[in-house]
Amino acid sequence: VSNTNVRVSLPAVCFVWQVAMIILFGVFVRYDKEADAHWSETKKEENITSNVENDFYYRYPSFQDVHVMIFVGFGFLMTFLKRYSFGGVGFNFLIAAFGLQWALLMQGWFHSLDPVTGYIYIGIENLINADFCVAGCLIAFGALLGKVSPVQLMVMTLFGVTLYAVEEYIILNLLHAIDAGGSMVIHIFGAYYGLTISWVLYRPNLHQSKRLHGSVYHSDVFAMIGTLFLWMYWPSFNSAICYHGDGQHRAAINTYLSLAASVLTTFAISSLSAKRGKLDMVHIQNATLAGGVAMGTAAEFMIQPYGALIVGFCCGIVSTFGYLVLTPFMEKCLKIQDTCGIHNLHAMPGVLGGVVGAITAATASNAVYSPEGLINTFDFQGNFATRSVTTQGAYQAAAMCVALIFGIGGGALVGLILRFPIWGDAEDDNCFDDEVYWEVSGAEFCCCPRCPLGVTVR
Amino acid sequence: VSNTNVRVSLPAVCFVWQVAMIILFGVFVRYDKEADAHWSETKKEENITSNVENDFYYRYPSFQDVHVMIFVGFGFLMTFLKRYSFGGVGFNFLIAAFGLQWALLMQGWFHSLDPVTGYIYIGIENLINADFCVAGCLIAFGALLGKVSPVQLMVMTLFGVTLYAVEEYIILNLLHAIDAGGSMVIHIFGAYYGLTISWVLYRPNLHQSKRLHGSVYHSDVFAMIGTLFLWMYWPSFNSAICYHGDGQHRAAINTYLSLAASVLTTFAISSLSAKRGKLDMVHIQNATLAGGVAMGTAAEFMIQPYGALIVGFCCGIVSTFGYLVLTPFMEKCLKIQDTCGIHNLHAMPGVLGGVVGAITAATASNAVYSPEGLINTFDFQGNFATRSVTTQGAYQAAAMCVALIFGIGGGALVGLILRFPIWGDAEDDNCFDDEVYWEVSGAEFCCCPRCPLGVTVR
Amino acid sequence: VSNTNVRVSLPAVCFVWQVAMIILFGVFVRYDKEADAHWSETKKEENITSNVENDFYYRYPSFQDVHVMIFVGFGFLMTFLKRYSFGGVGFNFLIAAFGLQWALLMQGWFHSLDPVTGYIYIGIENLINADFCVAGCLIAFGALLGKVSPVQLMVMTLFGVTLYAVEEYIILNLLHAIDAGGSMVIHIFGAYYGLTISWVLYRPNLHQSKRLHGSVYHSDVFAMIGTLFLWMYWPSFNSAICYHGDGQHRAAINTYLSLAASVLTTFAISSLSAKRGKLDMVHIQNATLAGGVAMGTAAEFMIQPYGALIVGFCCGIVSTFGYLVLTPFMEKCLKIQDTCGIHNLHAMPGVLGGVVGAITAATASNAVYSPEGLINTFDFQGNFATRSVTTQGAYQAAAMCVALIFGIGGGALVGLILRFPIWGDAEDDNCFDDEVYWEVSGAEFCCCPRCPLGVTVR
Repeated sequence: VSNTNVRVSLPAVCFVWQVAMIILFGVFVRYDKEADAHWSETKKEENITSNVENDFYYRYPSFQDVHVMIFVGFGFLMTFLKRYSFGGVGFNFLIAAFGLQWALLMQGWFHSLDPVTGYIYIGIENLINADFCVAGCLIAFGALLGKVSPVQLMVMTLFGVTLYAVEEYIILNLLHAIDAGGSMVIHIFGAYYGLTISWVLYRPNLHQSKRLHGSVYHSDVFAMIGTLFLWMYWPSFNSAICYHGDGQHRAAINTYLSLAASVLTTFAISSLSAKRGKLDMVHIQNATLAGGVAMGTAAEFMIQPYGALIVGFCCGIVSTFGYLVLTPFMEKCLKIQDTCGIHNLHAMPGVLGGVVGAITAATASNAVYSPEGLINTFDFQGNFATRSVTTQGAYQAAAMCVALIFGIGGGALVGLILRFPIWGDAEDDNCFDDEVYWEVSGAEFCCCPRCPLGVTVR
Repeated sequence: VSNTNVRVSLPAVCFVWQVAMIILFGVFVRYDKEADAHWSETKKEENITSNVENDFYYRYPSFQDVHVMIFVGFGFLMTFLKRYSFGGVGFNFLIAAFGLQWALLMQGWFHSLDPVTGYIYIGIENLINADFCVAGCLIAFGALLGKVSPVQLMVMTLFGVTLYAVEEYIILNLLHAIDAGGSMVIHIFGAYYGLTISWVLYRPNLHQSKRLHGSVYHSDVFAMIGTLFLWMYWPSFNSAICYHGDGQHRAAINTYLSLAASVLTTFAISSLSAKRGKLDMVHIQNATLAGGVAMGTAAEFMIQPYGALIVGFCCGIVSTFGYLVLTPFMEKCLKIQDTCGIHNLHAMPGVLGGVVGAITAATASNAVYSPEGLINTFDFQGNFATRSVTTQGAYQAAAMCVALIFGIGGGALVGLILRFPIWGDAEDDNCFDDEVYWEVSGAEFCCCPRCPLGVTVR
Repeated sequence: VSNTNVRVSLPAVCFVWQVAMIILFGVFVRYDKEADAHWSETKKEENITSNVENDFYYRYPSFQDVHVMIFVGFGFLMTFLKRYSFGGVGFNFLIAAFGLQWALLMQGWFHSLDPVTGYIYIGIENLINADFCVAGCLIAFGALLGKVSPVQLMVMTLFGVTLYAVEEYIILNLLHAIDAGGSMVIHIFGAYYGLTISWVLYRPNLHQSKRLHGSVYHSDVFAMIGTLFLWMYWPSFNSAICYHGDGQHRAAINTYLSLAASVLTTFAISSLSAKRGKLDMVHIQNATLAGGVAMGTAAEFMIQPYGALIVGFCCGIVSTFGYLVLTPFMEKCLKIQDTCGIHNLHAMPGVLGGVVGAITAATASNAVYSPEGLINTFDFQGNFATRSVTTQGAYQAAAMCVALIFGIGGGALVGLILRFPIWGDAEDDNCFDDEVYWEVSGAEFCCCPRCPLGVTVR
């Protein structure tokens, strides 16, 4: 029997890593000029006439929406299991709180390091990017939900954030690809990272935990809280770091429309696939979000409202089919156990989003964007001032491959690390159970054999 | 026995209508100038110096709050039934996602169509208005909750949005009435639309579903999520499309105060009406919101803080009395079955709001508003530059009648359509039950005769 | 047996006080210049070129986040008890809705009264401050949860808001201390106010209600909704009334970081303290928030990102130890029964925050802040233009004492008032039970002896 006691390992990891964060922040991290008390001097130097030009006011509302998606959105989406709601929302909380600190450092070294002072200067945009980075790891968590220990999740997050920062640097800076809402950087990477880890950690006897591998009525309602906050705030997610003005505006509209279309096709396929047309909560909780994932790359492009609807239309179908066909297939034939179905919600729509981004980038024109609009949207400045849109399309496609490679390669590596028998994960017959890592009072369990909690008495 | 199998009809409606949306959006809908990549050119032409003047930054935070009200607010408010939480939050999701697309088109044709290009140009204000339009249909859904099929709800939404757009055009453009938060346009219309449909669809033997017509402990707590998000964000709802500056500011203050007063009178009447003073969750979940409904028309008027408190004070009383007296009366004597009590929460406070709006408009003065403030508030410009405030008051009253007529007339028509025996609605003894349209695992039902779920075993 | 019938007292209090509010608002309260229809004239007079300079646009997003914290955050955090969820979220709703009205008046008299006209002019900042004031009373409610009647809570709120307004005036205006997020004004005051009341109302036989003094699985998940909305929006809370520009920006960053560190140390101590390292939901729900409390005073100071992390690091430890050691000790030895553990979440972190604020104020320098930044941050203007930072530090420390004195003194007074046997509170064996003040259908209770609701049948 494996030892699930994390009384030494979990506190040790939390303490040591938090102390490391404090030291590294002390050495490296300072406020950027818009958050520093010297801002009143900066305003004079840069001839800024109003405080409202502080980026805080452009981005803070979007930041808070993203923040809600990370903690309530992802957290509650993972409460759907009948006896793993504590683990779903609780471990989500833990790894996001650690991950965002490590992301500020990792992303800071790559993007915000001042070579003269040696400091990383952080402001509101760094906070958004840290939340984005964490999202990648939370997606991966979705595949592992209920099968790993919190210590494993912390390790997964440490490596995940590190890999993400490198991958993001390659995609955004070296390839100069556009990916405002992260179809590639966040979703493709996060999903394949999690799926590969899950594949390496394959549990042949997971069916022994079958009694807990499902939802009860109210846990499904809890999960809808997560679904809806993700769905509602996704326009903020995809527009949060777009350029000011029409960029943010257009990204919000596109995402709003794409998500709406996803809902209708998800309901359609879910009903079509069931005896008597009955809807399945798993589909409604997940596939309705696919339109947001797939609008990540092209969020600020001029794909027009109908283009956004088409993207959402396709994603709802593809994602729901994934839950119906691919998830069971992958478990049986590919030995990939994907608790939340992230392949359907993040991997496939992410790839679709990457493809849409590459095509729409390659077909962009001065007529549709205006010359200045084209420069703003694709950031054709500096070293990239002379890049053509077709070249841009090719680099977008290359970016997708980078995300995929980092996801699979990183996942394989981290999966191997997580296989060491030192992390305190549960046996195959003890998965999806909060009792392993949480104090749950015994009186919770009803002795009625058909109890709504669906749990046999110990 | 009626056939509740929607395996053909529901997917067909979702698919065909979504495809229609894509085609119509392709033909008609484009980004407006603030969301288009030509914005950098527009800025130069119109001499706009800062991106922060893009309407996105004035309205996006309010839009997101409204969005939460539509999906989490309305959705979770309707989870209170013990075995219809999936239907409450799920069908709310479906019809809102469809309705907002159709609303963008319908409202676009009436309000944002460029006669030269033939295009509807959409921006953030259109998204808010689409959400508003959907709110009308979700109110109507409240009366029908648990008694109709999802296909019927889609039909109800299709016609509801259409009727709304016409009614809105008459009220706002032809009559030139002010209704920023929609006491008339949204609440009166939506409530009477739903009540009339419910009257046409009267179910004489609904008592046969009595076992499921009620809440359990945790479903009441879920419903409070909906209540609170509606309550907290209502200031954003009423101020979302007010004019920039003091208009939005004042509307938020008025709504905040009116809602606070509603809470106290709701608690008072609820306690006063019960043996031993015990509070009733139904009242707390609903009547506390009446102050927001009734501030819809006069939101941006100078009714002063105490005026807003008086409105909320009265609404809490009227609405709670409605739940105590009118709902049972209407069911018994008028054969109107109103699941959520929308007559108490939307119809009566909406009428009160319309009356308050008409009176306060008729008594507006240059002294209180300043000449320019009066023009801003009542939009006395163009064809309406010479309209007097008393005339405005009369048109406000006329607007109320228009909303009422559209609600009742439209509801009668749509009710008749929904009576065809082809829509897959359940029998009278099978209402308020998620098992009809959702996969709910059988093991959910406890065999204990006094089970908290209150459901007898099959 | 005590009489818990509030059928006369609760409606009377709600009605009479609400009528009093209307009268007082009629006499005293008007819109401020940014919310008044004369704003277009004000803009000309004050040479304001854009509506976006209206304070509404600087503060409304933060206001709404604070509003969510008050109603959903505090409300749902108090749903954790197995049979007091209605009371937790419902009474929170009632007293917040009353308290904010009374706070607008009390704070208005002290801060916004125009001596010429005799009016209080309110705008968005007043709404935020009213919500802040209410937070103090909701903290106190946490200590009393389940043990007092709604009428007692209304009385507690009436006096609490009054005391708060005086204390706030002394601290912010007379002592000229800085306390943007209210570590002292809100948290120290609120916590000691509640703890002292609880001490005066000590119930020697509370163990007779032990069967209801705990959570069930889903009530713990509901409480996590409260935790997360408090946690996510705390950066808005601490930055909501900071000065425009870098002040708000920096306060958000500091709070974001401090909270993240709290999460890790909370998980560490919780796991370390339990057999087999199992986590305790009570800790996760509460101690993770301590970092936000402790960043209240120094929110906008230049404590640097690592400083914020250190504050959060310490708070998570202190607060979790409080739950493990101090709460049982206080109940046994000091006769203070603290239902939600506000001593651990608010009192101790509040004191820590006050100390951090005093030290960091005393060590502020022109080099770190820039001369103008120092003036902005500490408001060294008018009568306080010549104050040194060390003097400021001393006044910060004095402010902490004022908060403490008002909390303990006010609590003792109000506690005595609440001991009169006229308020309808329950017996010691009948606490933590919604059936006392709410209609709860009898069929709710399962007859299974090991029912998940953990309630024996009546």
